[in-house]
Amino acid sequence: MKVAEGDEIVLLDENGKRCLVNTSWNKRKIKGFGIIDPKNLIGFEYGRKIRLNQKEVWILKPSSYDRWKSLKRKAQIILPKDSAHIVINCSIVPGSIVVEGGIGSGSLTCVLSQIVGREGKIISYEKRKDFRRFAEENLRNVGLGYNVEIKEKDITKGIDEKDVDAVILDIPNPWEVVEHAYNSLKIGGCFCSYSPLISQVEKTVKKLREYPFVEIRTIETLQREIVVLERGARPSFDMLGHTGYLTFARKVLEV
Amino acid sequence: MKVAEGDEIVLLDENGKRCLVNTSWNKRKIKGFGIIDPKNLIGFEYGRKIRLNQKEVWILKPSSYDRWKSLKRKAQIILPKDSAHIVINCSIVPGSIVVEGGIGSGSLTCVLSQIVGREGKIISYEKRKDFRRFAEENLRNVGLGYNVEIKEKDITKGIDEKDVDAVILDIPNPWEVVEHAYNSLKIGGCFCSYSPLISQVEKTVKKLREYPFVEIRTIETLQREIVVLERGARPSFDMLGHTGYLTFARKVLEV
Amino acid sequence: MKVAEGDEIVLLDENGKRCLVNTSWNKRKIKGFGIIDPKNLIGFEYGRKIRLNQKEVWILKPSSYDRWKSLKRKAQIILPKDSAHIVINCSIVPGSIVVEGGIGSGSLTCVLSQIVGREGKIISYEKRKDFRRFAEENLRNVGLGYNVEIKEKDITKGIDEKDVDAVILDIPNPWEVVEHAYNSLKIGGCFCSYSPLISQVEKTVKKLREYPFVEIRTIETLQREIVVLERGARPSFDMLGHTGYLTFARKVLEV
Amino acid sequence: MKVAEGDEIVLLDENGKRCLVNTSWNKRKIKGFGIIDPKNLIGFEYGRKIRLNQKEVWILKPSSYDRWKSLKRKAQIILPKDSAHIVINCSIVPGSIVVEGGIGSGSLTCVLSQIVGREGKIISYEKRKDFRRFAEENLRNVGLGYNVEIKEKDITKGIDEKDVDAVILDIPNPWEVVEHAYNSLKIGGCFCSYSPLISQVEKTVKKLREYPFVEIRTIETLQREIVVLERGARPSFDMLGHTGYLTFARKVLEV
Repeated sequence: MKVAEGDEIVLLDENGKRCLVNTSWNKRKIKGFGIIDPKNLIGFEYGRKIRLNQKEVWILKPSSYDRWKSLKRKAQIILPKDSAHIVINCSIVPGSIVVEGGIGSGSLTCVLSQIVGREGKIISYEKRKDFRRFAEENLRNVGLGYNVEIKEKDITKGIDEKDVDAVILDIPNPWEVVEHAYNSLKIGGCFCSYSPLISQVEKTVKKLREYPFVEIRTIETLQREIVVLERGARPSFDMLGHTGYLTFARKVLEV
Repeated sequence: MKVAEGDEIVLLDENGKRCLVNTSWNKRKIKGFGIIDPKNLIGFEYGRKIRLNQKEVWILKPSSYDRWKSLKRKAQIILPKDSAHIVINCSIVPGSIVVEGGIGSGSLTCVLSQIVGREGKIISYEKRKDFRRFAEENLRNVGLGYNVEIKEKDITKGIDEKDVDAVILDIPNPWEVVEHAYNSLKIGGCFCSYSPLISQVEKTVKKLREYPFVEIRTIETLQREIVVLERGARPSFDMLGHTGYLTFARKVLEV
Repeated sequence: MKVAEGDEIVLLDENGKRCLVNTSWNKRKIKGFGIIDPKNLIGFEYGRKIRLNQKEVWILKPSSYDRWKSLKRKAQIILPKDSAHIVINCSIVPGSIVVEGGIGSGSLTCVLSQIVGREGKIISYEKRKDFRRFAEENLRNVGLGYNVEIKEKDITKGIDEKDVDAVILDIPNPWEVVEHAYNSLKIGGCFCSYSPLISQVEKTVKKLREYPFVEIRTIETLQREIVVLERGARPSFDMLGHTGYLTFARKVLEV
Repeated sequence: MKVAEGDEIVLLDENGKRCLVNTSWNKRKIKGFGIIDPKNLIGFEYGRKIRLNQKEVWILKPSSYDRWKSLKRKAQIILPKDSAHIVINCSIVPGSIVVEGGIGSGSLTCVLSQIVGREGKIISYEKRKDFRRFAEENLRNVGLGYNVEIKEKDITKGIDEKDVDAVILDIPNPWEVVEHAYNSLKIGGCFCSYSPLISQVEKTVKKLREYPFVEIRTIETLQREIVVLERGARPSFDMLGHTGYLTFARKVLEV
C-alpha cells in the first residue's frame, strides 16, 4: 500500500524518534527531522525506509503508541509503564467516560482517549491556561482530541460530571479531590491518583478510607529493559528508578 | 439503581474475591461463595453490602477487571501487570484484530477482548483441546467470547489470517512463530511474546533480527504493593519476583 | 581432616537448614535434627555426607555464615541482604568498636561480631530483659559473644561510650538517638538506622540534618534469586518485597 | 584531635568526592582537588571544613569506605552493592585467605583486604600486566596492599594455593576455573563468581553441578536510593539497573 494524498503517516527513525505528518500539510520544520514537505512522501510504499534530510526513516501508518511517542513533552509526564496500569486497573474500555484532573502535557489523555474510542469521552480539568493550550495543541498534532474536553478549571473545586466510570488524578494534592470524585463516580467506578511522593499516598489513602471506597490499594511499578547481545543477555545498566505511586479505589454505597 | 431480572452482576467479598452471576440463572454452587440463587439478588440496590451464606458481599455491575478476576485459573496465567503492557506496547485499541498463540486459561484473551471491543476480534490458536474448552467456558462464564474465535491448531504450523494488527504469543517456543507472524502482520503491526526464561528471549530476539522487524525490545516489569498503616507506609513484604519477559517487535518491509 | 573431641561443627542438610554442635556436648534434642549425640560424630571426615536420624547431612567446620544461619529467630531479624550493606557502608573492619541499639535476636550482632573480631567490640543496648537473654543465649549457642557486651538499657536515654566507630540502630524511634549518637561517635564515625517505614526514615533524616552530619543517605536493597534450569534461567517467582530502609550519616564538626 | 606530620588523611568535598593524602607527601596535583601541599594541612582539627583551592572540604581520618571511594576506576568495577554480599555470603572474616581471579582496578580487592586484615591474605591472579600494575598502584595509593599478593598469571590455567577460604572470580569465563577452584578450596570453602550475563551464570552453575559443591545459588541485588524532601520522601528517579549476578557455591567431598 502506498502513501496517498490526505494520509496521516508516522516517520520513524533508527533511534526510535518519530513524528506524525499529514500529506495534506504544507512544508514545515519538524524538530529532529528538519524541513519536511509532506507532499513529497506521497507514492512511497508503507513499510519502506527512505532517506530524508540526511537520515533514514521508515514510513508507517500511526499506531496508538506512535501517537503517544510523537507528543511534545513539558514537565514530568505519565509514562506507558504507569498509564498501562491505569487503563487496566481502572477498567477503562471502549465507551468509558473518564474525568481526568491535571492534563499536564496530555500524555495520559492521549492513551485514555485511544482506549475509550469514539463512544467514550475524556473530560480533563486543568487550571493552568498554558497547560490547557499546550495539551490541546499537542493532542491535535497527533490526530487526537475528538473525544477530549478540556475544562480550564481547578478540579479541587469540584467535578461537574456525574456517573463517570473513572476519576484519574495527576495533581499535587489528590486528597482534596476524594470527596468530589466520590460524588462524581458511578457506583463501582474507579478512583485513581498518580503521586511521586509517599506522603501524598498516605494522605490520599487516609482520606479514601473516610468514604465508602473498597479495594483501596497502592502499587508501584518498575520496568527493566533486557539487552540481548551475541554472547548472552542481561538487564540494561540504565533503569528508571521511580516515577510515581498509583493509588486505586472503587466506589460503593457502604463499607 | 436496583438489580433487575436478566442483570449480570458481580459479587465482591471483603478479601477481593469475586464471582459473576446472571439473575436469570438457576440456583448453583459457586466456589468460595456457596450455593447462590441469583433470583434472590433482584431488587437489591447496586453498591450495597449484603449478607450471603455467612459472608458480606457487595453487589456491583461487572467492570472489565471484575471479569478478569472472576476467571478460573489453570496453569500459569498472564497477569494484569504484564497484559497491561501488552495492550499499550502493541497499540491494541478498539477495533484491533489480534492473533493470539496459546490461549491458556484465557486470561490475556479476556483483557484483549474487552479492549478491542465489538469492532475488533481475537483469533486464538490453541493446540490442546482441553485448554481450548476450558478457556472457551471460562470466557463465556465471565460474559465474554463474542469477539473471540478459538482455533484448535498449533500456531507453530502457520497463521491463516493476514494483515492483523498484532500477533501475541504465550507458548514455549515463540521463535518458531516469528516467520508466520511476520507474514500474518500488517505493515507496522506488532509482534509480542511472553516468556518466563531468558533463553527463550534470546532465541526469539535472534530470530526476529533475521526478519525486517524494528523496535525490537524486551522488558520485564516488577510490581510492588505499598501498605499504608496508621503510623506510616512501606512496601509490602510480599512480592511477586518474576512472571515473564515481554519481547516486542514491529513489522516493516526492510531494515 | 577428621572430627575430633572438642570440635565445633555444623551439620548442614539438603534444604540448607543447619545447626551447630560441639563434640564435647552431651546428647541433646535439636529442632529439625532430632536427638543428637555429638560424640558419635567424632572420627567422621569433614566434608562427608552422613545419615543422621533419617536425613542426610554434611559435616563441616562452621563458617561465619553458618553461625548466622544457626541462630534462632524471634520477631523480625536483619537479614544478610541488609547487614552486608551495614558492614560496608559503616566501614566496619577488624578492630571496630560498634554501639548497637536494639539487639533483637542478635542477628546483626552475629554478623558484626565476626567482622570486628578479637580486637573489636560490640556494645549492644537492649531495654527488654527477655530480648537480652534470648540474644545472649543465641549468640553463645553459635560460638559467639566473646566480643559482645549487652547492656540492659534504653538507648534513647543515652549512650555511655565515647569515640566509637559506629552507632547502629534497629529500634522504632531512631530519631530519638540522633543526638546521643552524635555525642558518642568519633569524628568521621558512622550513624546507621534500619527502619521498615518511610515515615521513620523521614523523621530520622530530618533530625540528622540538625546536627553536623555529612553523607546522609538512605538506601533500600532488593535481592532476587536466579533459578538455573536445564532449559534456561529465570529469576525466582518468590521474592522478598521489602525488609527495611537503611539510613547512613557520618559525623563531622561543622557543616 | 589535630592533623600531625605523617598522618594519612582523607579530604571529602560536598559532592562526596574524596582523595587520600599523606601529610609527609610533597606538593602534588590531585584530580578534582587541584594542587595540594599536604604539609599545609598539618595542625587543622579533624572534622573541620576548610577552604582548599576554591572548594570546601572536610578533613577526616580515612575509613575503609573512604579508601574504596578514593580508588581510581578503570573499566567496570565491582560496587559495594555487590562486594558487600560477597563478603557476607563467602563468610570472609579477619584472617581469611582469599584467591581472587581478575583484579580489574582492585575495587573488590580493596574491600576484601580491609576485612581479612593483617592476619588474612588476598592472592589475586591477573593475566594482564597493565591491570596488575594499575591495581597495585591504586591499592598503594589508598594505603593498602600489605596483605595482597598479585600474580601475573591466568587463573584459568590453575591456582597454586591450597586450602583457601574462598575463590572469587570476576572474569569472562568463570566456568573454566570451577575445577581449579574446587581443588584449591578448603572443605567448606566458598566459590563465588560475578558475571554480568545470564549465559555466564548458566554455564558456571552447570559446571559447578558436576563437582561436589553444595548451596549453589545465584543472586542479583538492586539498590534504590531514597530522597527525603521537605514535603515528603520518594525513591530516587535515577537507579542502577544492573551490575552483575553473583553465583555462590560451597565445597564438600560428596553430594
